[in-house]
Amino acid sequence: MTLKQKFISEFLGTAFLLMIVVGSGIMGENLSQGNAAIALLANSIATGAGLFVLIQCLGPISGAHMNPMVSLVEVLWGRLKKQELLTYWVAQLSGSVIGVFIAHIMFNRPLIELSTKHREDFNIIFAESIATFGLISIVGLAGQKKMQHVPAAIALYITSAYWFTSSTSFANPAVTLARTLTNTFSGIAYNGLAKFVFAQTLGALMAYFLLRKPLK
Amino acid sequence: MTLKQKFISEFLGTAFLLMIVVGSGIMGENLSQGNAAIALLANSIATGAGLFVLIQCLGPISGAHMNPMVSLVEVLWGRLKKQELLTYWVAQLSGSVIGVFIAHIMFNRPLIELSTKHREDFNIIFAESIATFGLISIVGLAGQKKMQHVPAAIALYITSAYWFTSSTSFANPAVTLARTLTNTFSGIAYNGLAKFVFAQTLGALMAYFLLRKPLK
Amino acid sequence: MTLKQKFISEFLGTAFLLMIVVGSGIMGENLSQGNAAIALLANSIATGAGLFVLIQCLGPISGAHMNPMVSLVEVLWGRLKKQELLTYWVAQLSGSVIGVFIAHIMFNRPLIELSTKHREDFNIIFAESIATFGLISIVGLAGQKKMQHVPAAIALYITSAYWFTSSTSFANPAVTLARTLTNTFSGIAYNGLAKFVFAQTLGALMAYFLLRKPLK
Amino acid sequence: MTLKQKFISEFLGTAFLLMIVVGSGIMGENLSQGNAAIALLANSIATGAGLFVLIQCLGPISGAHMNPMVSLVEVLWGRLKKQELLTYWVAQLSGSVIGVFIAHIMFNRPLIELSTKHREDFNIIFAESIATFGLISIVGLAGQKKMQHVPAAIALYITSAYWFTSSTSFANPAVTLARTLTNTFSGIAYNGLAKFVFAQTLGALMAYFLLRKPLK
Repeated sequence: MTLKQKFISEFLGTAFLLMIVVGSGIMGENLSQGNAAIALLANSIATGAGLFVLIQCLGPISGAHMNPMVSLVEVLWGRLKKQELLTYWVAQLSGSVIGVFIAHIMFNRPLIELSTKHREDFNIIFAESIATFGLISIVGLAGQKKMQHVPAAIALYITSAYWFTSSTSFANPAVTLARTLTNTFSGIAYNGLAKFVFAQTLGALMAYFLLRKPLK
Repeated sequence: MTLKQKFISEFLGTAFLLMIVVGSGIMGENLSQGNAAIALLANSIATGAGLFVLIQCLGPISGAHMNPMVSLVEVLWGRLKKQELLTYWVAQLSGSVIGVFIAHIMFNRPLIELSTKHREDFNIIFAESIATFGLISIVGLAGQKKMQHVPAAIALYITSAYWFTSSTSFANPAVTLARTLTNTFSGIAYNGLAKFVFAQTLGALMAYFLLRKPLK
Repeated sequence: MTLKQKFISEFLGTAFLLMIVVGSGIMGENLSQGNAAIALLANSIATGAGLFVLIQCLGPISGAHMNPMVSLVEVLWGRLKKQELLTYWVAQLSGSVIGVFIAHIMFNRPLIELSTKHREDFNIIFAESIATFGLISIVGLAGQKKMQHVPAAIALYITSAYWFTSSTSFANPAVTLARTLTNTFSGIAYNGLAKFVFAQTLGALMAYFLLRKPLK
Repeated sequence: MTLKQKFISEFLGTAFLLMIVVGSGIMGENLSQGNAAIALLANSIATGAGLFVLIQCLGPISGAHMNPMVSLVEVLWGRLKKQELLTYWVAQLSGSVIGVFIAHIMFNRPLIELSTKHREDFNIIFAESIATFGLISIVGLAGQKKMQHVPAAIALYITSAYWFTSSTSFANPAVTLARTLTNTFSGIAYNGLAKFVFAQTLGALMAYFLLRKPLK
């Protein structure tokens, strides 16, 4: 695959990921008569199902990271070329913002909003580091030849982590940034952005060091 | 496989697809006490599950298109013979209408109704083009030998797209036509038919051009 | 496998199938505050998940029919020995009744009840024949070497058919008989038993004749 | 794999299992406005999804038991070395308690609580033995080369068994012990602990004896 193809793959993949997360959140909230558990069921099932598809389709092209933290750790593990990292990051960050824009057009909202949903308490930030530790660990093991069904594993991890972490498991700096731009079910007020990315970095590093040796 | 067997496969497949979409919509609406999110959960889970089965069973026989837009693009990509296209279209369109009839009999409704559910706003039409772009892209990549689990990918895409697009993702002209004939949860007023098919064509062409070269 | 092992497999499998159908129906109804759609979501997800497991585990032992109609058609298709049919039927019928008993013990109900839930209208009986036609068609194609993921296909068909048929898709005479013995969510008044079995036979024969030649 | 790696695998796996069970229970209860069926849907879907991931990732390292009863029966079946059993048990029991602690931190609760949810009636204890019989039978057959998709089978069994057993299917002494320490949706008052473990042992032994010969 050429680097241009990888860029398109990461850009489109991350854009669709945000459409799915934000769009299904809006639809869920619109229809569920205030029962947030039903909205989150819809949100988590739609995200898991969509992630499976994106990883199936884009995995053979770019690895289907759709996540700057994953790309970073893949460089550390020597599974992504250092000189490709910036391209991946640009694709992921721009794709994620475009994804929110498209979701907003689809649901007839302003192109851009600022979320007012506060997610900054210690317990939520702590949960976010656990969530990212789990995700990066799975990604690490997924490179091993003994693990099958990688797309299903990552997709179902996120479906599960929507529920078992109090942060609903963003585990992805591009997703976090883009979700500050929607004042809907899946939004996050920008005050939480730096804290979330810090927690994600911490969780990713924990997974990196845990699996550093076994992955050699 | 003979062309007759392919006809039966596409006819029965599309008929069952519409029974599933329309039938599960009726059941969901009947039982959910007005909570549309619960009805849509049922509708999207039943459709995804049913699609997986149909593609598993009929894929080896006719490719399990059950969608005139898919058949068209498969001709453009040179993966379906031009002279078989009309047969596929007749099977799909007639099957879809019969499917609605059977769903109506099963739920004790008039054989045919006209939907009064308006789905014509710009944002919904826009969403429908995104939905079809996604579906046709997956179908395109599904022909590549690197992609596994094609039935699961297509089924879960639709489950997800029920939620993340404001049109609930018809992405299929036969399905759209047939759904004008039911005044239930999954219906669409016929005013929206041409707009939906236009948007689906646009989305399909975008996917066709994006993947034209890589699929060669 | 010995015939004794096959008997145990069909007996235990059908018993667990009924525990799952009846038990998850009771649990769903108990907890859902009268919202039958939520109860049916639980019932259909639990049954699909459970069926997948039973077919995975028991398929290599006895074929995991757990359904007298499936066994009958397998004899017609020449894939089950005629002299084994009676053993299968006895295992399935006795297993299904025991399964209801165990479900009732687990949920602290009388060992046996008579259902008062009427399911006898023409549209429901018609739906039951469609449901069985679909199931037996999948079973037929499942014997073909081109079809993969048979357990998932059958499990997801039932999950879907709970929703898209007005009968909720019993598609199984042993299940129908046993469900006359529980006056809970999944029950059926015994007046409907003969009609259901008649419809199931009709649907099964339609599938048998449709696939008779291709399966040769 | 070294014994140290197996210890880490069982410890982390069981800790994550409890985070998932307890955390998704808390989230489900918090959001579902008192509709316990919706909370249990979330709880059962999150647990099934998470179990699939854990078994995929940790299966190649330690077998992904995360359950003292499974480890015990694996020793009896000669598939786990007797001298490794104690290490597995220590990892599982300590991991399960740590998992509850982390779930409590994530949801801002005291590190440790005593559950007041009574689960001691005969029918619940009986259900627990059935649940464990089913689980251990699947684990037994999973070692056979004829069974595929073991992680999916075990995960979906638990999803199903949350619904069809009145105990919601703990089927795991480490999980039972740890759940006495949370006074939330998934908790169990410690009066039930010994009865649950007794029932689990009974169910496991039934499965052991049933499959003793076929597994040779």
